[in-house]
Amino acid sequence: MSVSMYNIIEKKINKETLTREELDYFVTGMCAGEIPDYQTSALIMAIFLNGMGDQEITDLTLAMLHSGEQMDLSAIPGIKVDKHSTGGIGDTTTLVLTPLVASCGGKVAKMSGRGLGVATGTVDKLESIPGFRTALSSEEFISNVNSIGISLVGQTKNIAPADKKMYAIRDVTATAKSLPLIASSIMSKKLASGADKFVLDVKVGTGALVQKYEDGIKLAKLMCRIGQLSGHETVCYITNMNRPLGRNVGHLLEVQEAVATLRGDGAEDVDELCVRLAAEMLSLAEIDTFENCKQKAQEALKSGAALKKFKQLVERQGGMFEAIENPALYYEKPCVYSVKAPASGYINILRAEDIGRATAVLGAARKTKDAPIDFQAGLSFTKRYSEYVKAGEELCRLYSKDDAHMAEAEALVLHTVELKKEAFVPEPLIFEVVR
Amino acid sequence: MSVSMYNIIEKKINKETLTREELDYFVTGMCAGEIPDYQTSALIMAIFLNGMGDQEITDLTLAMLHSGEQMDLSAIPGIKVDKHSTGGIGDTTTLVLTPLVASCGGKVAKMSGRGLGVATGTVDKLESIPGFRTALSSEEFISNVNSIGISLVGQTKNIAPADKKMYAIRDVTATAKSLPLIASSIMSKKLASGADKFVLDVKVGTGALVQKYEDGIKLAKLMCRIGQLSGHETVCYITNMNRPLGRNVGHLLEVQEAVATLRGDGAEDVDELCVRLAAEMLSLAEIDTFENCKQKAQEALKSGAALKKFKQLVERQGGMFEAIENPALYYEKPCVYSVKAPASGYINILRAEDIGRATAVLGAARKTKDAPIDFQAGLSFTKRYSEYVKAGEELCRLYSKDDAHMAEAEALVLHTVELKKEAFVPEPLIFEVVR
Repeated sequence: MSVSMYNIIEKKINKETLTREELDYFVTGMCAGEIPDYQTSALIMAIFLNGMGDQEITDLTLAMLHSGEQMDLSAIPGIKVDKHSTGGIGDTTTLVLTPLVASCGGKVAKMSGRGLGVATGTVDKLESIPGFRTALSSEEFISNVNSIGISLVGQTKNIAPADKKMYAIRDVTATAKSLPLIASSIMSKKLASGADKFVLDVKVGTGALVQKYEDGIKLAKLMCRIGQLSGHETVCYITNMNRPLGRNVGHLLEVQEAVATLRGDGAEDVDELCVRLAAEMLSLAEIDTFENCKQKAQEALKSGAALKKFKQLVERQGGMFEAIENPALYYEKPCVYSVKAPASGYINILRAEDIGRATAVLGAARKTKDAPIDFQAGLSFTKRYSEYVKAGEELCRLYSKDDAHMAEAEALVLHTVELKKEAFVPEPLIFEVVR
Repeated sequence: MSVSMYNIIEKKINKETLTREELDYFVTGMCAGEIPDYQTSALIMAIFLNGMGDQEITDLTLAMLHSGEQMDLSAIPGIKVDKHSTGGIGDTTTLVLTPLVASCGGKVAKMSGRGLGVATGTVDKLESIPGFRTALSSEEFISNVNSIGISLVGQTKNIAPADKKMYAIRDVTATAKSLPLIASSIMSKKLASGADKFVLDVKVGTGALVQKYEDGIKLAKLMCRIGQLSGHETVCYITNMNRPLGRNVGHLLEVQEAVATLRGDGAEDVDELCVRLAAEMLSLAEIDTFENCKQKAQEALKSGAALKKFKQLVERQGGMFEAIENPALYYEKPCVYSVKAPASGYINILRAEDIGRATAVLGAARKTKDAPIDFQAGLSFTKRYSEYVKAGEELCRLYSKDDAHMAEAEALVLHTVELKKEAFVPEPLIFEVVR
């Protein structure tokens, strides 16, 4: 039987496994505009409801990968390990982790994304450092990695266009939450980065795309399997996104927190996560054993080597490092508003997403695709998750260009902060590791 | 939560029941071109894979019904009972049944369809009678029923346009076989006919849309439920379409067989089916009890009253009745080819659809939507299903305008006719009645 979109849809309806040839036919035809959207949409729904096998998801991922360009990192010697987070509120990890790994001898050639919805993006955070260039030529990118061990850029290449088309359909047909399609979307873009191995941080909770723990585990297993079947060792950390990571949420605010963490003044849990992920990346790169790499990473934070590497990165890509600690040199002073605790109690966060929405209201998210961001906007917790606060004490500070949205943001924060009478055991930050 | 296509799709993904309001929103928006095809297609796939409840299917049917015009039969006194067959090969039932019912006092105001694929259609068969007009004004249609008890016309009104749109999507997304969607498609068009009650003939077998007996039962139950929930008593006969009905397959050939049956010279099983369906329609119309109606129908066949009614119908709508038995008066003489039995044995038909394909090859089907039909083309069995034939004896005759496709049609017939060494018990024509 010859390959046709009708037969492909019919096979998926009957829960049969689609072949690599059939998935290539679908992806190629869709990208060429030869397959009408209603057939793409029918197939996506059938995949969502009937699922896919591991080899099938891997074949779909590879077809999506080959729909676009791929980065060639072969000019960088050694094993290249890339890191990816599925995104959350106040996720500063990349800004701490990548210089930390580079300071321990790992090669970090990383492409990052921009903000999506109320979640901030690494590229936007880097651009909050005045002068920082995130659009480098491939040559400059690779040359930076070879000379200082690190370069962070935006996705400038035509990466997995099939993913963009499929996402546009998923977004309007209530199928965005399909785990096989999330897995192949992430992995097709990761494989395009040109790295050899991957450490993935799957965020689970009220501030993440994946809300349920079991779904996080399933997604992690799927991505590890795709990695394995495509010849790329992959390790997934399932981490807690029921609360924002660290103290700060915003762009410059998160860069400031990253610098504090790199200096050894970070929140304990962010510290722990970054050290664990760094040790994972370094041991996958075969620098040393996991335990030795963990020790190296802890030392690099203590000694200032990691902070030095970050400064080197910022300066190499044209950024004004002094602006991070003294923004008034480059930015107008923002309005600052102090949110007080309405009662005494131990701080619990009900929905991390609401903290994201509060920072979006303050100006830290794009209103439309190409709208500007207020880099100074955001929120900084004075007292953190599980800490005790007295009634009337400062709970957090809000930053925005003016006073217009302070009240709205304050209401969102107070609505989602629960002040418990009794002390409680904080939820762990790392739930599980899947490999 | 306000109604949106996204929410409607999401509910069906979660196997929730869509409300009448939501289904109206979908059908109205789709017909107005406001809902893009990829969302319609996603919802259809979700319905196909997750199913629908009885009330939900009924609500969808009513929404589809209201997307178009409805016939108003209120000017015809009494209970109007309509009949519908899901279509098959050589299905002459309507041509026999409707004059039979009218000759026993039933009111028959029937809209019929044209041929679809290799299955012939009642309207095309009627038009094979020279002069027969199938496009009447509503006034003439109703006046004919009131004066002679019967009128048969084509679907000229804008009936259930939502069904046409949905079918176009189903046809290219491998979802045509969705039982809830087949049921709502048939019932929305039946309800538009304006009748009070329905007798449905669900064909099951190798020559029908529904191939499996269990699916036929499911479809019948769904349609009876839709009838009940919308206030229209509905009875479904599940009948055998593993073999063509009667001797003849074609247009004029089937009209000729109808006349023979009305005269009392019909195949026994067609006779039996028509008498049963007629008694069902007459008793639903509350003319008399089922058993008395059965007797009335048998008498109308014997007495010639049914044939007389058919002649009256043909003449009232402008048809030349004498052309049926003497086509040479109006048509060029067709080529006739005699297919001989290649061996001796009892005739079994493997796939009724192949007989349909043979008649299509001979010219009895449209090649494109508006192509003409050779009304004389077709096939007539000399020996029928389960009868014994000797090697070299005539098995059937092929009719076509020339010799060009005789060999191809003969090959199709011989390929699907099995000559069994042992006599066998014929499969019944009526499998089951669902009400």
